[in-house]
Amino acid sequence: MANEAQTQIMNDLVIDRNEDFIAKSEQLKPELVRETVRPQNFVEVVADPAVIHGWRAQAIESQAEQSYGKGDEFILDFGTHQVGYVFMQIRPVGSPPDAPLSLKLTFGEMPVEMAEPFSEYDGWLSSSWLQEETIYVDVLPARIELPRRYSFRYIKFEVLDTSRKYRVAFDDIQCQTVTSADPSCVIPLHHKDSLLAQIDQVSIKTLQDCMQDVFEDGPKRDRRLWLGDLRLQALANYETFQNNDLVKRCLYLFAGVPDDRGRIMANVFIAPSLIPDDIYLFDYSLLFSTTLHDYYFATNDKETLVELWPSAYRQIELALERLDEHNIVKDDKSWWSFIDWHQELNKQAPSQAVLIHAIKRAIEMAKVLGSDKQAFLEERLQEIVTATITHLWDEEQGFFVSGAEKQVSWASQIWMALAEVLEPEENRQLMNRLLSEKPEIVLTTPYMYHYLVEALIIVGEKEKAVEQLKAYWGEMIHDGADTFWELYDPNNKDFSPYGSYLINSYCHAWSCTPTYLIRKYNL
Amino acid sequence: MANEAQTQIMNDLVIDRNEDFIAKSEQLKPELVRETVRPQNFVEVVADPAVIHGWRAQAIESQAEQSYGKGDEFILDFGTHQVGYVFMQIRPVGSPPDAPLSLKLTFGEMPVEMAEPFSEYDGWLSSSWLQEETIYVDVLPARIELPRRYSFRYIKFEVLDTSRKYRVAFDDIQCQTVTSADPSCVIPLHHKDSLLAQIDQVSIKTLQDCMQDVFEDGPKRDRRLWLGDLRLQALANYETFQNNDLVKRCLYLFAGVPDDRGRIMANVFIAPSLIPDDIYLFDYSLLFSTTLHDYYFATNDKETLVELWPSAYRQIELALERLDEHNIVKDDKSWWSFIDWHQELNKQAPSQAVLIHAIKRAIEMAKVLGSDKQAFLEERLQEIVTATITHLWDEEQGFFVSGAEKQVSWASQIWMALAEVLEPEENRQLMNRLLSEKPEIVLTTPYMYHYLVEALIIVGEKEKAVEQLKAYWGEMIHDGADTFWELYDPNNKDFSPYGSYLINSYCHAWSCTPTYLIRKYNL
Repeated sequence: MANEAQTQIMNDLVIDRNEDFIAKSEQLKPELVRETVRPQNFVEVVADPAVIHGWRAQAIESQAEQSYGKGDEFILDFGTHQVGYVFMQIRPVGSPPDAPLSLKLTFGEMPVEMAEPFSEYDGWLSSSWLQEETIYVDVLPARIELPRRYSFRYIKFEVLDTSRKYRVAFDDIQCQTVTSADPSCVIPLHHKDSLLAQIDQVSIKTLQDCMQDVFEDGPKRDRRLWLGDLRLQALANYETFQNNDLVKRCLYLFAGVPDDRGRIMANVFIAPSLIPDDIYLFDYSLLFSTTLHDYYFATNDKETLVELWPSAYRQIELALERLDEHNIVKDDKSWWSFIDWHQELNKQAPSQAVLIHAIKRAIEMAKVLGSDKQAFLEERLQEIVTATITHLWDEEQGFFVSGAEKQVSWASQIWMALAEVLEPEENRQLMNRLLSEKPEIVLTTPYMYHYLVEALIIVGEKEKAVEQLKAYWGEMIHDGADTFWELYDPNNKDFSPYGSYLINSYCHAWSCTPTYLIRKYNL
Repeated sequence: MANEAQTQIMNDLVIDRNEDFIAKSEQLKPELVRETVRPQNFVEVVADPAVIHGWRAQAIESQAEQSYGKGDEFILDFGTHQVGYVFMQIRPVGSPPDAPLSLKLTFGEMPVEMAEPFSEYDGWLSSSWLQEETIYVDVLPARIELPRRYSFRYIKFEVLDTSRKYRVAFDDIQCQTVTSADPSCVIPLHHKDSLLAQIDQVSIKTLQDCMQDVFEDGPKRDRRLWLGDLRLQALANYETFQNNDLVKRCLYLFAGVPDDRGRIMANVFIAPSLIPDDIYLFDYSLLFSTTLHDYYFATNDKETLVELWPSAYRQIELALERLDEHNIVKDDKSWWSFIDWHQELNKQAPSQAVLIHAIKRAIEMAKVLGSDKQAFLEERLQEIVTATITHLWDEEQGFFVSGAEKQVSWASQIWMALAEVLEPEENRQLMNRLLSEKPEIVLTTPYMYHYLVEALIIVGEKEKAVEQLKAYWGEMIHDGADTFWELYDPNNKDFSPYGSYLINSYCHAWSCTPTYLIRKYNL
């Protein structure tokens, strides 16, 4: 999550475990749905400058009765994105196997992972995320059950060595896929626009592959529950799989391990036991509250609302501490807010908007609860909105500005629009001005593109919303996406904030919202 | 076993399984003795042209509370040779581990295996024998139990990657050693000659590490039951561990899977089920009979002698088919005999001697059994010995010659001496002539050095036998052997018939006989 130059580490984090919440999250552990999938084709990777990353997978004829010796390799295509466990049978061909088999397996979501050696990777995220295994098989024939879970469409098999006396053959290679999403719950869309129909499908598949023991951000990387992704996955979930207990589980997981000031961390680890990461993000912490709001209004689960409201309210309370005497979020070196991956993006204005957006939804929850915080929140909201217009709105440019340099970014305008700081008509003009003037500090993640599209919808520009959605997610499909990606800049398709596209996740939760946008808003 | 240019493959081998024999071998499966061993030091490998392979392991101070990150490595020394399973605890140090740990482990019997990368190996035996593993650990802390068995003194740990946020520490690294030898059965030697005492110890440790589910040739490589090694291990076993059931098990394993002509193959695989290798060696097949002879006279197990005599006799019978009209072993392209690893060694004369040696012992068994084969064998023996002297003895040189080129080799003289073809006094002179004239075709394996020493003993040259034993095995100890090696040429310490000393076994059964020679012959 952190940018390259800054890796957030908090050495003195003290966690205040709520064992009731943790127990509740445990009880909500989902059953995983398992299915057996077999490879569809042999493929080879072909260099092609016309495609993303410059590599294309091309189906080739398989030879029947193929056996492999030292240095032989082949690539299998499983037809679409899979998340699961890989099994196979390996048998010796020739004389009895008088030395072990050494075999290397490489798993890739995209053809480039079959083409570019992982040994050349030099990004700043850990190389351990790149999925490869070297196994030694002492006894043949053997049934191999790889213990780790993989996220892939392609598997490359490389026989490192056998011996001069034998070769090997592979039988019954299969993937046992796992998900906590039940596809039979999804109501078919039947959209007359075939591209939107396709985007909806790919979006649903993306969510399905990310729904595991928790809502994972991405099944290849980081395989973890993050607040920002959770919020969006939950919205998509309500329109599709409706596994609402999974949302509830995740809310209790986060609320179960705040620090001793009540701060909810940006992501949690659940194995070997539940611990929060030492990353605290201003915007993500507020999204906890917003996610609870969305959950309640999707499910009417008042009991959960009652129980988790104090945790949600606490995040608002803590965020308010960051406001300066002008009621503007203090932009200094002591805070972290995500918003988007752009290296130069200033977080002040977008974060201010996330706060306003969160307070409004907190007020809705307070009303349902008859909470005594309602009046206080309404009063603060008023002050903050007024301050925002006073200090962050540049009337001349017609944009919100952020930070000491008064940066104009896409993210600021989008979040301010979602927070409905301006009146509706000015809000609509703001979004239109954004689209026509195209400030330099652009969006880099599908996460922010979601909010762009949603902002266009709520200001009443549905057609433009559909246009953006098709241009972005449609282009991803055109570029070969079986599931939507963690990162995508249609003008710089090699983009990775990590230093190498090999490590990007090509099935990412925060990219799965088109199904929500299409279905919820009847696009 | 086969030389580089010749790899024996028999495509149409038909096996005639004897299920009774196989069942008997199953019932004799040994219990493995397990012990927990911990590393003794951290070491580093230091280049040193004065030592074998040019690398020495030097103990270094360990830092307490050491943690490791990307690119860090360390080497542990377990103090002596170990065969077993490796366990450890790994825990994260720093922030919660937000990416998998990727860890590479390299196991070596000798310091050179810690120094020279296996990626540079280019010998003709399979690189899969070189012991290394790359593991990915998704959940930390973790208890790691590596499933494969390793043969090593040193383990190198290389942390390939963690993440910027955490490092790892290793706790409680241990090896659970396995053997089917019970050290408490060994009577202490108390030899006044301290070098002989040491040689005896190292020899016993070598045998102990090779005694597993079967008598293995070497626990690193090939981890398999071979006839030639079995014979020598059994002799050492009778003087030490006296696990005679293990010898019996191995005899039944071999006798259980002859081919459809009754030929017993040179080695067998026991997993996933018992199958013989497709290697048939003239000398090794005769050693089956000799091994049965040794077994009976060590144990008086007549029941086994009765059951396995037909298999033993059959090997003699089949070997006799190779004699030409002069009663000399036909040396052509249609046969394989091992004898020793020397590339230019002619096998005719040594194999002739192995045959004579085997027939003499078969006659001893026939006598015990009252077998009607006795007379026939005695008659054939006479003919063969006469023919051997007529056709293979060069009176002028005072040596036996082998093959069309009339090659004079160490191996020929040694086996002829063991076969007692000449009268005792001439036999003794033969061995002395060998030691003084030193023919060019020398010995390359401890296997043949065993027979050299034993030949000197049986011709009555005990002192010279001790001299040779000390010069050879003593020099191995001087060069750092914790267990005796598969291959050793004191004049060419880098020797490997496989193209690289990395792949040599440094704990090899056929090198373990000094304990037998010392104890049996009271050296």
